[in-house]
Amino acid sequence: MFLKARPLEIEALKPIVILNREDADELDVRPLDRVELMVNNKKLIAIVNVAEVFVLEGEIGLSETVHEKLGVKMGEKIKVKPSEPPESLIFIKNKLSGNVLKSKEIEKIVIDVVGQRLSDIEITAFVTGLYIHGMAMNEVAALSRAMAETGKNLKFKTKEIFDKHSIGGIPGDKTSMILVPVIAAAGLTIPKTSSRAITAPAGTADRMECLCPVDLTLEEIKRVVRKTNGCLVWGGAVELAPADDMLIQIEYPLSIDPLLLPSVMSKKKAVNAKYVVIDIPTGRGVKIKTPQEAEDLAIEFIELGKKLKINVNCISTFADQPIGYGIGPALEAREVLNTIENGKGPKDLIDKVSCLSSVLFDFKKIKNPKDKISHILKSGKADRKLRDIIAAQGGNPKIKPEDIPVADKVVKIKSNKSGRVLWINNHFITRMARVVGAPKDKGAGILLHRKLADKVKKGDILFEIYAEKNYKLRKALEIFEEKNVFGVGKKYSIVLAEIPEEEERKKYFILER
Amino acid sequence: MFLKARPLEIEALKPIVILNREDADELDVRPLDRVELMVNNKKLIAIVNVAEVFVLEGEIGLSETVHEKLGVKMGEKIKVKPSEPPESLIFIKNKLSGNVLKSKEIEKIVIDVVGQRLSDIEITAFVTGLYIHGMAMNEVAALSRAMAETGKNLKFKTKEIFDKHSIGGIPGDKTSMILVPVIAAAGLTIPKTSSRAITAPAGTADRMECLCPVDLTLEEIKRVVRKTNGCLVWGGAVELAPADDMLIQIEYPLSIDPLLLPSVMSKKKAVNAKYVVIDIPTGRGVKIKTPQEAEDLAIEFIELGKKLKINVNCISTFADQPIGYGIGPALEAREVLNTIENGKGPKDLIDKVSCLSSVLFDFKKIKNPKDKISHILKSGKADRKLRDIIAAQGGNPKIKPEDIPVADKVVKIKSNKSGRVLWINNHFITRMARVVGAPKDKGAGILLHRKLADKVKKGDILFEIYAEKNYKLRKALEIFEEKNVFGVGKKYSIVLAEIPEEEERKKYFILER
Repeated sequence: MFLKARPLEIEALKPIVILNREDADELDVRPLDRVELMVNNKKLIAIVNVAEVFVLEGEIGLSETVHEKLGVKMGEKIKVKPSEPPESLIFIKNKLSGNVLKSKEIEKIVIDVVGQRLSDIEITAFVTGLYIHGMAMNEVAALSRAMAETGKNLKFKTKEIFDKHSIGGIPGDKTSMILVPVIAAAGLTIPKTSSRAITAPAGTADRMECLCPVDLTLEEIKRVVRKTNGCLVWGGAVELAPADDMLIQIEYPLSIDPLLLPSVMSKKKAVNAKYVVIDIPTGRGVKIKTPQEAEDLAIEFIELGKKLKINVNCISTFADQPIGYGIGPALEAREVLNTIENGKGPKDLIDKVSCLSSVLFDFKKIKNPKDKISHILKSGKADRKLRDIIAAQGGNPKIKPEDIPVADKVVKIKSNKSGRVLWINNHFITRMARVVGAPKDKGAGILLHRKLADKVKKGDILFEIYAEKNYKLRKALEIFEEKNVFGVGKKYSIVLAEIPEEEERKKYFILER
Repeated sequence: MFLKARPLEIEALKPIVILNREDADELDVRPLDRVELMVNNKKLIAIVNVAEVFVLEGEIGLSETVHEKLGVKMGEKIKVKPSEPPESLIFIKNKLSGNVLKSKEIEKIVIDVVGQRLSDIEITAFVTGLYIHGMAMNEVAALSRAMAETGKNLKFKTKEIFDKHSIGGIPGDKTSMILVPVIAAAGLTIPKTSSRAITAPAGTADRMECLCPVDLTLEEIKRVVRKTNGCLVWGGAVELAPADDMLIQIEYPLSIDPLLLPSVMSKKKAVNAKYVVIDIPTGRGVKIKTPQEAEDLAIEFIELGKKLKINVNCISTFADQPIGYGIGPALEAREVLNTIENGKGPKDLIDKVSCLSSVLFDFKKIKNPKDKISHILKSGKADRKLRDIIAAQGGNPKIKPEDIPVADKVVKIKSNKSGRVLWINNHFITRMARVVGAPKDKGAGILLHRKLADKVKKGDILFEIYAEKNYKLRKALEIFEEKNVFGVGKKYSIVLAEIPEEEERKKYFILER
């Protein structure tokens, strides 16, 4: 059948066409079936949508992608015929039936996800199938490999690439920004790619962006790493594992995350990492609640590492409160500069840097790792290295903490009783930081004044809220008033909570990479 | 945040809005999150899409549905704020975790499906969850009830409503068009609503449409039934269980059908049926392959019937070949008129009408049901009743078989050997009928000349293919040449098939209601 091209304002990555109901019936295709389009010696498979009114009989509505790929003009005739769904759909259905997929089959699914050949409904079925049935370790390995192979690849001359990853969930976790300079200052190569926040107040890329550009090209990253041994860049700019971003778009609305392992490890594979330390924050407010769960996950990471020829070690870290005091890109970047200057700063932050760095040193059997790390920090070597990286990435190496702008609307939250800080709720801290604008408003966020077990007198400041707009500040205050964000008291009560019959109960979902 | 309305040519039933990336970030919403729109004292929750280019910062693109519901003009300011997903999403996630849902929870999901408050990704997760975990009978019953209650309802004065349903899969199954007049002629009330074909060459609504209109309103249906005791109408026109159509749109692209039981029974509930016979075609080419599977399904239908206060009986019927000889709306409608005239016609068709009708008679303990049915057919009572129904629905009651136009391009397929018909492949018969244009081209289809076990001499016609266009005829001939559609031989071979190593293997999916 020949139909007249009609470019539409549809900005979709998938190749979507819209047929009039009559033409769809004539072709015997239904919504989400495929058609093959042929014009000017070009061929393209597209996914069918059906309209009653907007596309007339004899026309074919083209999304931007299809329009560009075919290079047709309005009214030009396109030959249209039904086409079969990709073979990978059969493999997805096999997964739904509980089968273990072969590596080749998983590879085909990932290729079709990246190639935009599967509809959202089909990808959702796949993600849901993985969530319900789980994956065998061979499937996880195949998925990790396929996700890395369908993206770009970072190759360096040295084969000894070090890397660090946190599975996330704690607000204020700025560890990478200090760890990377420490490792690089020790002469090891650590090309750190990071994500932007999805559900958190800041990702490492958001924090680092307060100091210098992070959206570097592959070539620029290589240059920075050649010069400094390290980098702190946004992975999203270089498409290391584009399948991951596409799958996250399905996982996010469903608040499910069956792809944690392949998501993390595909990116380590794509930078050709040889030694990786994985931080597993463990506590009530994060993904992994107990040390046992952390150990189970660690064993999976290590096993997966073996299959991918990556040496992996994991550390389960205390996650019942934010790391350091600043939460939000600018407040965190300030804290990093203050801490790295001479290694003096929040104890939990420095401890975390030290423990995770020493795991990387252990891979190389470096003796007395903690002493060396302490020396690198205190001597100012780490500070100089961070500034070298900032300069190499195109930022100002002389930047001072106070050069980083923070928001000018500030509210101080004071304690209404004396005692100690008994608990800090990560979820509500995160929500407050999000509603005041983090990570988009870089200067917005929360600055803690007290942390767990700290003594508090009535009237002491517990934390400050920073916002660019008053209405955002008000939203954060509403959360503070409604929820139990900070617990101050003399001692823990035997009653954990009274659970009323009808209150709305909600789980917060953390999706970070 | 206030954004300027920009109506877009997006024909979607779901309330979709498109935000520019900057505004989405400012609102802290991501694709498929929800926003609440407020303008002119109207409120609406919509699902977010994000654009980089087509919608400018400060604008909000509105799908047709949103535009109509809000009644705004281009450029008018709309107040936009983030909104939570509906509660039903939590229940969907519980189902993914393998929980059995409560009736209230299932009801909420169905209400949100019908209310277009769930995105395709969320509905897909639900359908996939049902497919993988299955449903407890109480869940099936709740789903059936909710699907009926969220649609229109057909109420009649009599409480003794009879109904018949086939779970489908056999081409040429025109049983309902004869059974309904037989039952109605016996004085029982049978308001039969049918579907159009989804994957088959014809549905009962498509066949009946060759004789009279089938897209009647509820009031018109009631009038027809008051007058004649029966009707043969398209259920889709009266929205008896709209959730079903929405769920089918997800099931179809995935070729999965976890909703067979609630789909069928919700519609029986919506017409307030008291006595239902369900035909379960059983054989290699249909959904249900073996008598054991048929029995298992029958038990489920009967149990579900009890929960819904519907008396259900099931019959497993032979399904290894088409019913009768005609396949395609017009060819089938002709066969119905020829058969009902005096009860003379294809033995399998008449047997099927007789067996299924007598199950309905049994509910009323009518004696010698088969004799009575035979009398109704042979005496011309059924014929008169069908013509009364045709007239009441707005058709010509004097229509003769030859008045129904069939396609004028005909190819006769002859046997190249002598013997008996050993098998007929339903799938390929269906595919041939579809490629020649059935059900859209009403006169297109297949007319069998021989059926299973019939004697065949070399050169005898096996079947004819009817098409309106030569190119469609050629496509059917290609299928005939490539596939083993008809098996003629002296006896069955001990070798069922030789399975080559690399041939493309494909399963055909039947989705009919």
